[in-house]
Amino acid sequence: MVTSHWTATPAQASLRRRGAVLERAILDAALEQLSTVGWKGLTMEGVAAGAQTGKAAVYRRWPSKEDLVADALQAGLPRLEDAPDLGGVREDLLTLCRRARDAMFSRPGFALRAVIHECDPAQAERLHDVIIKGVVEPTVKLLREVITRGIERGEVRSDAANGYVFDAIPAMMMYRAKLCASEWNDRDLEELIDQLMLPLLRPTRG
Amino acid sequence: MVTSHWTATPAQASLRRRGAVLERAILDAALEQLSTVGWKGLTMEGVAAGAQTGKAAVYRRWPSKEDLVADALQAGLPRLEDAPDLGGVREDLLTLCRRARDAMFSRPGFALRAVIHECDPAQAERLHDVIIKGVVEPTVKLLREVITRGIERGEVRSDAANGYVFDAIPAMMMYRAKLCASEWNDRDLEELIDQLMLPLLRPTRG
Repeated sequence: MVTSHWTATPAQASLRRRGAVLERAILDAALEQLSTVGWKGLTMEGVAAGAQTGKAAVYRRWPSKEDLVADALQAGLPRLEDAPDLGGVREDLLTLCRRARDAMFSRPGFALRAVIHECDPAQAERLHDVIIKGVVEPTVKLLREVITRGIERGEVRSDAANGYVFDAIPAMMMYRAKLCASEWNDRDLEELIDQLMLPLLRPTRG
Repeated sequence: MVTSHWTATPAQASLRRRGAVLERAILDAALEQLSTVGWKGLTMEGVAAGAQTGKAAVYRRWPSKEDLVADALQAGLPRLEDAPDLGGVREDLLTLCRRARDAMFSRPGFALRAVIHECDPAQAERLHDVIIKGVVEPTVKLLREVITRGIERGEVRSDAANGYVFDAIPAMMMYRAKLCASEWNDRDLEELIDQLMLPLLRPTRG
């Protein structure tokens, strides 16, 4: 029997979704809530309504808001791609920055930033764990690869592969997005690389 | 007539405070609320209770939460001191960083960061104006002075006095305080200067 999607009420529709499909709808609705009303504004009721299901269906799978949001972030985070290898540190860093910018301004990116800004590490340890393991560490890994390759080519000073250098791009991107509402267009990213990263990385001479 | 502070009820006490004294108590209470429950948690009722006065006394002076918080931040922000001039860019930057750290972890600092993290520039234009004019611009001014003096001494490359360089320290301090709960002890600050700022500033040779 084929029942038209258009004639089913939301409640009826939800009955026909099972397992992974319903879970996906709930996680999507959680990301949507996070990116619009933020962590503090998100409610289990709101997520259930967004997923066109009942509150019980949400609580059955996730006993708390923190559990739900941790899974939603995990499911929504962009997959780690390989580090670019375009033959020069400038192009490689620009490529990473463009990818980071596109991720920041995606729905999961807005959701993630809502959590970062609204939760202290101590308040929401589990969420911060997802952020550190799912975003910060993979980003540092890519930056480390690009910078290490630059050192091997002699393009980058030999002691530049350290935590302060790796954090500079994410720190600047978060700071200006937050404080100046910068959207980091391509021109801004080029200036970031040319005025901050290349001087920071250039080999020591003399 | 001397009335003991200890026998007066809060409501009676509030009646005897006038003008500037009561205003100061309300602004202090607003900073206290911001640094504990944050921008979204702050209510005019909570501020009135903290200042041991009535809600009407708050609304009479500040018609909205945004007006009150803007004035509280403005009144609580540390005064701009002169840029340090210790003879070298490393010591000057370290001094600025220690001052910034002490301000960040003061009560007005916690209040300010609550506002930065919870409000988007578009949502709370007036508050962001206070932050930009009261904190960001004065900080950039001090960094510019220290870096310009370094250029004049030949210690710093001639093209280093730009916005990306000026933003590097505030961006790193905010990023790690937020994401890693760093408290920026003296050792961390020295590493920030030695591993990020000095390589970034060193003169170009060859």
